[in-house]
Formats: sequence, C-alpha cells, structure tokens
Amino acid sequence: MNFYDQLMNGYNDEWTHSGVNGERLAHRLAELAKTGWTEEGGCLRIAFSQEELAAKKLVMQWMEEEGLEVEMDGAGNVFGRLEGQEDLPVVLSGSHVDSVPHGGHFDGPLGVLSALEVVSAWREQGYQPKRPFEIVIFSDEEGARFNGGLTGSQAFVGEIDSEKERKRVDYEGRSYEEVLKGVGLTPESVASAKRDLDQVHAFIEVHIEQGKRLEKAGLPAGVVTGIAGPTWLKVVFTGAAGHAGNTPMNDRQDALVAASDFIQKVKDFPPQVSDSGVATVGKLEVKPNGVNVIPGEVELTVDIRDIKKEWKDAIVRSVKECAEAVAGEHDIKVDLDELMSVDPVEIPQDMQQKAGEAAKEVLGQDPFYLPSGAGHDAMVVGRYVPAAMLFTQSKDGISHNPKEWSSLNDCTQTVHVLKRFIEKVCDE
Amino acid sequence: MNFYDQLMNGYNDEWTHSGVNGERLAHRLAELAKTGWTEEGGCLRIAFSQEELAAKKLVMQWMEEEGLEVEMDGAGNVFGRLEGQEDLPVVLSGSHVDSVPHGGHFDGPLGVLSALEVVSAWREQGYQPKRPFEIVIFSDEEGARFNGGLTGSQAFVGEIDSEKERKRVDYEGRSYEEVLKGVGLTPESVASAKRDLDQVHAFIEVHIEQGKRLEKAGLPAGVVTGIAGPTWLKVVFTGAAGHAGNTPMNDRQDALVAASDFIQKVKDFPPQVSDSGVATVGKLEVKPNGVNVIPGEVELTVDIRDIKKEWKDAIVRSVKECAEAVAGEHDIKVDLDELMSVDPVEIPQDMQQKAGEAAKEVLGQDPFYLPSGAGHDAMVVGRYVPAAMLFTQSKDGISHNPKEWSSLNDCTQTVHVLKRFIEKVCDE
Repeated sequence: MNFYDQLMNGYNDEWTHSGVNGERLAHRLAELAKTGWTEEGGCLRIAFSQEELAAKKLVMQWMEEEGLEVEMDGAGNVFGRLEGQEDLPVVLSGSHVDSVPHGGHFDGPLGVLSALEVVSAWREQGYQPKRPFEIVIFSDEEGARFNGGLTGSQAFVGEIDSEKERKRVDYEGRSYEEVLKGVGLTPESVASAKRDLDQVHAFIEVHIEQGKRLEKAGLPAGVVTGIAGPTWLKVVFTGAAGHAGNTPMNDRQDALVAASDFIQKVKDFPPQVSDSGVATVGKLEVKPNGVNVIPGEVELTVDIRDIKKEWKDAIVRSVKECAEAVAGEHDIKVDLDELMSVDPVEIPQDMQQKAGEAAKEVLGQDPFYLPSGAGHDAMVVGRYVPAAMLFTQSKDGISHNPKEWSSLNDCTQTVHVLKRFIEKVCDE
Repeated sequence: MNFYDQLMNGYNDEWTHSGVNGERLAHRLAELAKTGWTEEGGCLRIAFSQEELAAKKLVMQWMEEEGLEVEMDGAGNVFGRLEGQEDLPVVLSGSHVDSVPHGGHFDGPLGVLSALEVVSAWREQGYQPKRPFEIVIFSDEEGARFNGGLTGSQAFVGEIDSEKERKRVDYEGRSYEEVLKGVGLTPESVASAKRDLDQVHAFIEVHIEQGKRLEKAGLPAGVVTGIAGPTWLKVVFTGAAGHAGNTPMNDRQDALVAASDFIQKVKDFPPQVSDSGVATVGKLEVKPNGVNVIPGEVELTVDIRDIKKEWKDAIVRSVKECAEAVAGEHDIKVDLDELMSVDPVEIPQDMQQKAGEAAKEVLGQDPFYLPSGAGHDAMVVGRYVPAAMLFTQSKDGISHNPKEWSSLNDCTQTVHVLKRFIEKVCDE
C-alpha cells in the first residue's frame, strides 16, 4: 500500500468539515513524503540537501496555489503570507521539513502542512483573519548535517552564531560554506535572516508527540505546557581495573559498581521535583570491557529535562551531588562535564488557555495538557515571542524512525484545533 | 636500565644461599625476556609462535647444561628430567613461557625458571632427590592464539579435544593445523602427548599472584589453597528504547536501570558464601547507546569464581535468581546464557601442609594461605594428580601488562620455599 492509501485507510471523513479536508492533507503528506523516500519507507531529507530544498519548493508551490505571498529568507526559511484585515504584527505557524537519517514522514511536515491546511480551509470558507498570518518552514531543525540543529529558527530570531557555524564540517567532510552554496545560500545570507520580532505577534507549532501520553489517554491532540530544554552531563567514574579472579570483593574500586549505584539513584530525582522532569543515562561505555577484568573506568551521559528552569536546575544539582557522593562512598574518582544546557521554554498561560479552549471546542472534552520533552523551533522562537505547541498522537511513541505514524483522523482533528486556536490568536 | 639491571637493583644477596642464586635467576629471567621483548618493554610470545619456540629452546639449552634429560612431547611441552635415587613416580614443577599480546615477563617464566633454579641449586649442593624430578614447560597456557588456552597441560593429562581444536582459526586467520606445522607439530602429535599419569606423583607450580594479597601482607610468597574455576554468564536485559525527553519516568522499561539494580545486587552474593568467592560484571554494552535514548537493551557478563565447587555453584545460583527477580521487578525481559563453566580445583591438604612447612622454614613466619582466582596449568593437572601452587608477590597486583613486576628478592625467596617444598614431596 502506498503512503497515501495507508493514510486514507480508516479515515473517518466526518472530520472533513469547516473547510478542513483530511483527504487534501493526506495527499500533501504523501506528495511531500516522496521527496527523500527511502527503501525502508522512511525519510532521508537532511538539512541543506537537494531533498530538503525540493520539499520546500513543493510547499512553496502549494502556498502560491493558495494565493499566498511566498518568500525564502537568507537562511532558507520559507514564509507564505496571507494578509490580515489589519496591518498588525503577524501570527506564524509551521515547523520544518528536514529529517534525521532514517526518519519518518510526520516529524516536521505535519506542522507545516497543518498550517497550510488552515489557510486552505480559510480560503474555502472565505475567511480572512484580522492579523496577517504566515506559514513557516524553518531550515535545519534536526541538525543531522552538522550535528547541531534549530539553525533556521535561530537565524530568524537573530541568535545564529556565524563564527561557530562557519567552522562546521558535515558528515561528508564538506564545509559549512560549501554546503550552503549547494542550496543557494551563504553564511552572510544566513546571518541576515533575522526578522523584526516586534512585528511577530505569536508562533504556533503543531508536532507529533514522540511519546505515548496521548496514546494512553486515547486522545488525538494535546496542548503543550512547556518545552523542556535538555542539560547533558558527561560523568566519568575512574576506579582501578584488576583481575576479576584475583581481587577480593572487599578490595575493589569497581567503576561499574559505582556507576550502577549512581544510575539507581539518578532515576529517583525527577519525581522528587516535578511530574514533567526526566533524567536518563542513555550512553555508557566500560573500560577495558573484558569479561574477566574489573571495570577501571565508566563513562556515561545523563540527559536531564524539565519544563521549568528552576525544576531542571534542581534535578541537575541533585545528579551532580549524587555523582560526587557515590564516588566518595566507593572510593573512586569522578569527573563531571556539562556537555550542553538549553533553558526550557514555558508556554505563556494565555496561549495555553486559548489552545485549551480550541481543543475543547473541537474535541468536546477537557483539553489534555502535556510537556514537550524534545526541543523544537517553538523553543527557539518562544524565547522572543509568545509561542505555543499542539501535539498529535504518535503511534507507540515512535519517532525518528520509518515506523513513525500518526493516523489521519488524529492529524485532521489536530488541524481543526490548530485552526480554531490560530483564529483566536489572529483575531485578538 | 635493562631488565637484568632492573632485577638486580635492590637485590639483597643474603638470599643467595643453599645453592639458590638470585643473580643466576635474574640472568635467566632477563635472557628469556629478550625473546619477544616489545618496544614498551613488555612481552609478545604468543602460543605456537617462533618466539615461544625460541624461549623453549633457550630453556632446553639451560636444562642440558644442568645435565638433565631433555624432551619435547607432541604438544610442544618440554620436560627436563633429573633421575631420582629410586625408580618412583615423578614430581614435576614448572609453568609456561607463552604470553598474552601485551604481557609481562614473570607470568609463566618465573614458574619455569624457579624449577630450573631448584635443579641448579641441587647440583651445587650435590643433592639427588629420592624421586625423579622434572621441570616442565607447558605449551599455550594463555590461549592468546586461538582464544582457548591450557592446551599443553590438557594434552599432558589426555583431556585435549582434537575435533574441537582442529576447527580453531587463529587471529591471523590461520588454521590449527597450519599454525602447529609452523612449530613442527601436528594435530596427531598433540593428541599423542598424553602422559602415563600413574607415573606422576605430584605437580607443583610457582606463579605470580596477579593480585594484591601478598603485597598487602608484606610477604614474598604464599601457599595456594585452591584454584577457582570460573563460570561466565551472559545476561541480556531487554526493555523498551524510547525518547529520553518524551517518556515519563513512571512509564519506562529502561534496561540500564534494571542492569544497574542487578549489578548492585551481584556484588553482595560472594561474601555471603565465602571469603574467596568473587563475582564481576566486567563487560557491558548498551543499545542503542545514545545520549537522548532510553536504553532498550543491555548485554553484560558475570564472571563468578570460588575455590570450592559448592561455593561457586551457590553464587551462580544466587546470580541467576537475581537476574530473573530484577527483570520481574522492572517489568522487562531477561535472557541468561552460561558461556563457560570450569570446576575449581582444591589443593590437597597434605600438599598445602608441606608447602606451608616449607614457607615457614624459609620465611620464618606462619605461612600465608590464599586462593588463586585465575586458572593455571595446575588446575588442569590437579584434576588427575596432587597439585600445589606457590604464589610470588606481584607489584600492585598487575599482570598481563608490561608493568607486571615481582622483585628479585621475592622471586628468590619463593625459589627457596619451592626447593624445600619439592624436597619434602620428592623424599616422601
């Protein structure tokens, strides 16, 4: 079954109403998916590739067909503008179309095409918002080319660090400048892409949840309460390697025993602070890693996230103190390194409230609120202008994988919520 | 400083007496070390290599100079025989001269050259034992070529599994047959190397401790109580991988959290059973091993040893039950696999007693008894004839490393203990 048929399979067309058309959404999702379609049915649409550019051009064509004023800025970000009844700061909605190497077809495209579907619906209904509205495609959200990411939205808000970007080399050994040239951009054009943010009223992003909360709640869509910026710690425990047979149990400095003690304790910190906090030891390497050798060194990472800075800081503090305490108890050495720290972004209460009202009107029940554990363009933009996010149910919580899936019923209902939400924000 | 000078540095020649000569021992250790000497000052003398063969030939030459009857059997094991006053079953002493890839110069050679030094001392003293005595060099103890080991002593006791050995391919892709041919042996000759064990009275092996017990006790040598055969378990915990940001702490099946719980518990089992038992998780691999991905699978090994079979079995049973219990508590799957299990060998009480008396006579204090956590040729031979071991202090417990070191004072004192011990066994 091709992707379009898969999408349409089981679609309940009672969701096609008020101008929103599930079949059109499925058609666009399927057409976009052809760009970078992989043998396993996944998506290979790395940032600044010809595939990403082709996907943008396809959406630009649809934008033009909807009568929008279409523009690509110096960072490759695409905007499709619908003028409002009044000359007020603009409301934007969208996401990205780049992917990770073996990605799926919803992470990014759904946010872009949901915003486009809102415009298509408005056109059918003959509706013009009070404020101008723009659909946006941000470049390079995933960061798969340069191991970075979010640079399109960073350029948009004027956060791009040109000196840092210029030093980047991609996975094929090509320089930043060379890669940009391939899609008609330059380091200078990227740096010039900053938007006048006084003229931006709000940014709203639809995205797949990439978790299982909505699936467990049996809901198509939810309202995001905050975007959890991650802190990544590297922790190295150094004990003493030794012969597994000839070193008595009471005379060991086993780095893995210490690391295990640490891992057991780390998992208990987030629940002490909040319901939204998480801490994960995802990567761990043992040295020398021999069956009959006591581990002399363990290097591991801790990924810590929460939607409020003070909450995340509290977890980070506990984890760091724990590493020191565990090292002391086991009489071994510990080195701590903060690899990355991104502040979380809280979604403004009035934005959450409007989104919740829209969800209730469309879905007929109290809105479901949930945190975003992953970073998104809304995290970057949300530091400068009011931003909000709607999540669509992800099957089995899977993302960044060809198996990524959201049913067309859930996607279309999300578009309805988005439409009502944007109307509330545009007309205020 | 060359190796000989390093050995002689700090040597107290009051230990040169009763025919035992520390300087001669140092000379032989240093000459043998030249065969396979590496740039880092370590030893590369892999089993069935030209280097191992050259080392054997050097010792054979020394044996001949001592007037011994020298022979190499079909497995490449070398014997240097001194006839006794009576035609009784023989007492053997020796070890091996092969090494691991980046080995040291004491593991193996010290056992061979200590036995040779005893013969040299006897010759100086004009002593002939009642029983015949043979110095032995067993082939391929370390097993670095075929990832096996102990095959020389296995052939000696008739335990070699020719069919299994024939299938071996070495680290350079060469077949068993081809490798043997390079040192003048054949699979058939190896299989024919079985000795008539009724004619073997006892086997005594000197070896470096490869642990820190003697160093902590401040003693040059100790008497081994048993040789701990290892059981190796492979344990695979399978949970569910997921996004580290979007999966709440209370909705995880984190394989690494479960594995950590297991590791914490495993370390507590040996002390519940004995002072000699050990259990080590030495090797651990996380999948997918990404900073922001909840570990979906952890594969680890447990190395369990003790000197009595019932003790080791009790620890193995506890570890297996623990893996199942932990998997249940964490709602994840576990697979258990026994990779290897070698029964421990107990040293007969009368052999321990004679060795202890010899140690007391030489060192002037109560003997120090300790287990051997590592396998040795004495483990293989000890299943068929009474076997015993003496350990020499290892600096920092380091072995299988160019830094492996035992002082000449300690080595020479061990030779004195060995000499008295062999005399007691030969004259009984």
